[in-house]
Amino acid sequence: MKPRILVTNDDGVHSPGLRAAVEALYADFDVLVVAPERQQSAVGHSITLHKPLRMEPVSVGGLPVRAFQTNGTPADCVVLASLVDPPAPQLVVSGINVGANLGEEIFYSGTVSAAMEAAIQGLPAFAVSVAGTEQVFFEPAAAYVARLARLLLEVSLPSGSFLNVNVPNLPAGELREARLTRLGRRCYANQLEKRTDPRGRDYYWFSGEPCEADSTPDTDIGAVHAGFISITPIHIDITDYALLERLSAEAHRFSFGEAQVAGDAGK
Amino acid sequence: MKPRILVTNDDGVHSPGLRAAVEALYADFDVLVVAPERQQSAVGHSITLHKPLRMEPVSVGGLPVRAFQTNGTPADCVVLASLVDPPAPQLVVSGINVGANLGEEIFYSGTVSAAMEAAIQGLPAFAVSVAGTEQVFFEPAAAYVARLARLLLEVSLPSGSFLNVNVPNLPAGELREARLTRLGRRCYANQLEKRTDPRGRDYYWFSGEPCEADSTPDTDIGAVHAGFISITPIHIDITDYALLERLSAEAHRFSFGEAQVAGDAGK
Repeated sequence: MKPRILVTNDDGVHSPGLRAAVEALYADFDVLVVAPERQQSAVGHSITLHKPLRMEPVSVGGLPVRAFQTNGTPADCVVLASLVDPPAPQLVVSGINVGANLGEEIFYSGTVSAAMEAAIQGLPAFAVSVAGTEQVFFEPAAAYVARLARLLLEVSLPSGSFLNVNVPNLPAGELREARLTRLGRRCYANQLEKRTDPRGRDYYWFSGEPCEADSTPDTDIGAVHAGFISITPIHIDITDYALLERLSAEAHRFSFGEAQVAGDAGK
Repeated sequence: MKPRILVTNDDGVHSPGLRAAVEALYADFDVLVVAPERQQSAVGHSITLHKPLRMEPVSVGGLPVRAFQTNGTPADCVVLASLVDPPAPQLVVSGINVGANLGEEIFYSGTVSAAMEAAIQGLPAFAVSVAGTEQVFFEPAAAYVARLARLLLEVSLPSGSFLNVNVPNLPAGELREARLTRLGRRCYANQLEKRTDPRGRDYYWFSGEPCEADSTPDTDIGAVHAGFISITPIHIDITDYALLERLSAEAHRFSFGEAQVAGDAGK
């Protein structure tokens, strides 16, 4: 029996990036697709509590795989897949996203949130994005998806960890090797643009170009910039242990005594 | 001049939890409120790209503070506050949320995402939640908010870090000391409930009670369960450095060679 892989994304089930991933995987794996019916960019890691979720069969470019579209978020799709159509997949692949997810962008990314949800559910996962938005070269990224999927069935990821993969938008011949990286930091300049509507009321658009703040070669940003595939291991335990140790040494300062309450309340 | 504090939340600007925080802070601080106009639960860490953002003056229970409601997410509010009404605050307080944000729940939490956005923007911040949804005791939590705000202007947080604070839902006399904690893990059983609509189509609701999987005393879950205020330091660099080191030792397995591409493409 072929190992089961769940493919999801945040660009929607009809995205060419998802189709490219499925095409590269279906020969060797039992591929199940559960993806949003439409684009869900910058939804972050949200789950749907306030409305019922639907799941309908759909065709992914005529490929011979079971596929469903949902009205949920990427994180919803991961939970839906395991519960509506068991058994749970042995690997979750989120992508291929059109546009990079680097540095702290991963906190806003629906693509990454699906891999993070998989890690929360205890499933091995990776998110994969191509760092381009026009004339995107999906084929080298898709070939790497198939390679990484096979590898991750051998090299098991620890529980709670997943990989965030970014592929430079280059034809296969120009792509450089894969590099294991840490998260970089991006900065955004001029993030808001103020406008006035015809009735004289102000409104705002997010804008601004990212300026690459921490693009040293060992970061995801630096690797992709130099033409390398970037593979960043992420863990869902985001406790700051160094700060925990430092603050624990002066834990008394965080105390909450009766006197303190009375003092605050007496103002 | 009083230090400036931005207060935001995800329950909406008219939440009694936000009002309690503002009441505890406005005497000692220059309080600016920028909060969503309505409840934004489980929005995760999303930013608004697809619609214009509005920001309108609003009253917070008649208190003498400048306050604005927006149609954005909690993370949007943090960005809006700094850019629309400079200077940037010296501290961002997100809450007081009705309901705990413990373990991996922080990834779905709008309350926590506002503090995380502040950390991304380089601002010190904490998120604060009361672990109760009915008959919520806001006063002890609000008194602690004021205490912690004063402390964080002395004990500075490293860039990229913030604190996630959870207060047990107890009257002041029954509340125990604050404890510095790591993130625990929750598990959720029976997460989806399947129903059939009048036309015979299936739909799903998320349901299920959390079962407390990792509630050892040093976790946020364990601390709150035992009646302690929990303070968890979080960092936005969520790279899994242990896994990065392990995988770097076998980096050759992640390679992406021409032969590999040709091999995959030839299928």
